[in-house]
Amino acid sequence: MDVQEQQHTDLQQVAELVDEIKFAMMTTEEADGTLRSRPMATMQMDGSGCLWFFTAMSSPKVDEAEMHHQVNLSYANPDKQDYLSVSGNCEIVRDKDKMRALWTPWVQPWFPKGVDDPDLVLLKVTITEAEYWVAPGSAAKRLYGL
Amino acid sequence: MDVQEQQHTDLQQVAELVDEIKFAMMTTEEADGTLRSRPMATMQMDGSGCLWFFTAMSSPKVDEAEMHHQVNLSYANPDKQDYLSVSGNCEIVRDKDKMRALWTPWVQPWFPKGVDDPDLVLLKVTITEAEYWVAPGSAAKRLYGL
Ligand SMILES: Cc1cc2nc3c(=O)[nH]c(=O)nc-3n(C[C@H](O)[C@H](O)[C@H](O)COP(=O)(O)O)c2cc1C
Repeated sequence: MDVQEQQHTDLQQVAELVDEIKFAMMTTEEADGTLRSRPMATMQMDGSGCLWFFTAMSSPKVDEAEMHHQVNLSYANPDKQDYLSVSGNCEIVRDKDKMRALWTPWVQPWFPKGVDDPDLVLLKVTITEAEYWVAPGSAAKRLYGL
Repeated sequence: MDVQEQQHTDLQQVAELVDEIKFAMMTTEEADGTLRSRPMATMQMDGSGCLWFFTAMSSPKVDEAEMHHQVNLSYANPDKQDYLSVSGNCEIVRDKDKMRALWTPWVQPWFPKGVDDPDLVLLKVTITEAEYWVAPGSAAKRLYGL
């Protein structure tokens, strides 16, 4: 996973939590309003604060994200009592160079056909709001309007 | 936290994950469609599979849940690679006896005025869908139409 130095300094704490926890639960909304989540491996948090994930174009989350672009990414580490909520807009990106740059063998279990699988795409989440709770005390800290 | 024997046997695995992880990230939807989450301490999973939480009536999550009843509860344990997504309907319950039965000192940090605080209410989440990924392999298992 590649977490870059953040241009927005107030995103630095968010980057540190993403780097610590790595796996997010991505929540999307279904057509009937049901909220569903699933674990997703964060591949990159780029310098402008966008979060990148691999996924299969044919997976339900892509349809859900295309109908309701707003998603939530929650990063939870119950042992250390560190928690992060990222609200953002999700878009599908078909950029083979970027995919090759981000590809690593440990995502192979979810994408056995590898980086050249035509069904493989990138999900890019642009942060609109972030909130984190860091032990000790875990009082909520909010970053609005990024 | 009180996790009871489940009447629906297929909810037993869900109950075990809730018991293991305890803290959920509860995602709600704001009026403008933004999805926001925050950590919440699970107080009980009752025999019929409902999940119970304490919260403040005056907190934004209550307004959000009243406008959009569908919420998601994600339980994540990155160290053990166990993940649970619960989709459900959320309602506010003002039952002082139930509150006293569930009250424990370790929720005091979020409710310093204690169990008799007039702003204290219960959130009851009734499960509609659940999905879990349990190591090793963490293949998705789905329970629909509960
Ligand atoms: C580990 C942990 C557990 C928490 N448990 C609860 C809880 O059970 N109930 C609650 O209302 N807030 C709890 N909080 C605080 C919430 O995360 C949140 O900051 C607060 O409820 C306000 O949320 P809202 O502005 O979305 O309504 C907890 C925070 C942490 C760090």
